[in-house]
Amino acid sequence: MRDVAVIGIGMTDFGECWNDSLRDLFVKAALQAMDESGADRLDSIYVGSMSPGLFCGQEHIGSLLSDYLGQAPVPAARVESACASGGLALRCGFFEVASGASDFVLCGGVEKMTDVSGAQATYALGTASDQDYEAFHGATFPGLYALIATAHMHKYGTKREDLAQVAVKNHENGLLNPHAQYRMKITVEQVINSVKVADPLNILDCSPITDGAAAVLLCPLEMTKKLSKKPIVKIAASAMATDTMALHQRKDITWLGSTAKAAESAYKKAGVKPGDIDFAEVHDCFTIAEICVLESLGVVEKGKGGEASRSGLTARDGKFPVNPSGGLKSKGHPVGATGIAQIYEIVTQLRGEAGKRQLKKANRGLAQNMGGSGGSAVVHILEVL
Amino acid sequence: MRDVAVIGIGMTDFGECWNDSLRDLFVKAALQAMDESGADRLDSIYVGSMSPGLFCGQEHIGSLLSDYLGQAPVPAARVESACASGGLALRCGFFEVASGASDFVLCGGVEKMTDVSGAQATYALGTASDQDYEAFHGATFPGLYALIATAHMHKYGTKREDLAQVAVKNHENGLLNPHAQYRMKITVEQVINSVKVADPLNILDCSPITDGAAAVLLCPLEMTKKLSKKPIVKIAASAMATDTMALHQRKDITWLGSTAKAAESAYKKAGVKPGDIDFAEVHDCFTIAEICVLESLGVVEKGKGGEASRSGLTARDGKFPVNPSGGLKSKGHPVGATGIAQIYEIVTQLRGEAGKRQLKKANRGLAQNMGGSGGSAVVHILEVL
Repeated sequence: MRDVAVIGIGMTDFGECWNDSLRDLFVKAALQAMDESGADRLDSIYVGSMSPGLFCGQEHIGSLLSDYLGQAPVPAARVESACASGGLALRCGFFEVASGASDFVLCGGVEKMTDVSGAQATYALGTASDQDYEAFHGATFPGLYALIATAHMHKYGTKREDLAQVAVKNHENGLLNPHAQYRMKITVEQVINSVKVADPLNILDCSPITDGAAAVLLCPLEMTKKLSKKPIVKIAASAMATDTMALHQRKDITWLGSTAKAAESAYKKAGVKPGDIDFAEVHDCFTIAEICVLESLGVVEKGKGGEASRSGLTARDGKFPVNPSGGLKSKGHPVGATGIAQIYEIVTQLRGEAGKRQLKKANRGLAQNMGGSGGSAVVHILEVL
Repeated sequence: MRDVAVIGIGMTDFGECWNDSLRDLFVKAALQAMDESGADRLDSIYVGSMSPGLFCGQEHIGSLLSDYLGQAPVPAARVESACASGGLALRCGFFEVASGASDFVLCGGVEKMTDVSGAQATYALGTASDQDYEAFHGATFPGLYALIATAHMHKYGTKREDLAQVAVKNHENGLLNPHAQYRMKITVEQVINSVKVADPLNILDCSPITDGAAAVLLCPLEMTKKLSKKPIVKIAASAMATDTMALHQRKDITWLGSTAKAAESAYKKAGVKPGDIDFAEVHDCFTIAEICVLESLGVVEKGKGGEASRSGLTARDGKFPVNPSGGLKSKGHPVGATGIAQIYEIVTQLRGEAGKRQLKKANRGLAQNMGGSGGSAVVHILEVL
């Protein structure tokens, strides 16, 4: 397998993008990534998108976006693993470059979610849960994560304030991210007093409905060294794992098995331990998710995820910064784009280009992207040379 | 890149499978492929499916099917390129094995289409066309292919009977395929007198709405030689290309640019010419499609696709048999499964296991799988060692 590097990145502003269609969003992000790369061609395109069929009445977006980007006949594949579709796109592109089949592979993610009503969006997102055993019976994602939160509070004594603190911390970071959807400071009190969604989760515990796209261009490491004028960012590991789709089949719903397995595999491939990672972008679709993810990644012990934000461990100036971009909570969560937007942030930090939110130490970063209630997870580790 | 072989195949009966859900269908096909392989584990799963969201209200089927197959935490990715989703799944799995990252990769395809009404199915299929420029204005796939047929008749003098002959030939083959949905002999007269769908296409020019699944298990060639008791089938080439999504942007709508480009690339990779191929499974979603595909593959000259069936060239005992399985027309077209079912037939023929429909000469076969009206195409060439 050849070593693979990121040679270009791009992303749109995240938010309610009334003036941009799905294809506009993708092309904007893709052109940025291509522009900064110095590459003179594309060999292949992967695009992660969860449900353009339900959100926009449009499938077959690989062909559509290759065409609209002016790149046909370049091969283009849409890949999907619910909210982990972006991470999956990177994984597929990684294999194509690593195999030696292609040199320049664009991995993008896009979701246009605001063309449908809130109820329709909730239905579309619900198709990432088990239709027969969960969604059909009325469970929504806020409901499923509320079950996880309740179990975590019961088992480990996690406090309501611990959940809120995750949102507060991520909004502090998002405030400094020009691409973020919700650039505002919030307090623990505001989170706790915000509108109830599914007890114990309030609206400020939930990531928003968002339009947006992100793209990264992959290239063999040796070619990147010759072509790129930017610091060289290598993909040290790409790993994916699955878990039971439905929550009721898991022995412990506070433990994200797919994240734990993917991380274990990624650490092994990169030859590192959790302590060797400087910072992470993780899938905080709900505040409780970030707490469980940190435990499953091995960053903190089981049951200690709630402490991580409270103690300052995961703050931007903490020992292990988490979601310096603002995370899904503040930056926004266009589901298919999220996994690639995480990579955008990590590369930006590793290059030292993050401006006011630049971390002091950023040599090795981890991205954890999750589908549904953890039925799938993709973990990437990136290093600057 | 490592050489890649097919070590196991499986498929369900195609048809209206009232007793099997999407997950049942996939698992049946996957278990067959695993059972005959001699492999003791899976490293990764790819599943091609066009729109489980619109057909079944279920996305995230990578996780779902890995789970239901009893394989979680094995990584599982759903991939989509409309009706070429199956071919795309094979292409992704091919890269993962070729790269050296994985040894046993299951590539499956599935679609459960009969849980919705005919009108809903037509809408879902229409999402493979350009929503803004085609579907929104009322174009359906029969309508788009009718435009292609009309143009081909006008430009090359192709006769109504030539279209019909494709269906007649494919039904003759399907009659001998126990998995086929429509196992009945039809005549040119019956096709021409069948119900009009979109002039000049009648109902017997159109592939049906179908439930079904198919799966193939990939393995490095060298390992396959040690493990398999069956004749060894190698994937000599895997190629994909795109074209403009919408028909109106093409200079010549009778020419399938994505198929031509993918085939050109596949011939080059395999080091062969069209004349070195013994037979093909091609994407006859409509009778006119097979005619245009044969021209774009370089099997016959431009404008001569209509003659190919009439002259007997593409018959089972002809010089270049096409769709010995019965094709999409007779075998059925569960869109995401079709590309993998083509591989199932080619491997069956190459192994000499096709029973009554066994071809006399079957050493090298080609599969051409197409998305939408040719916005994407995937071509594979397989050889028996």
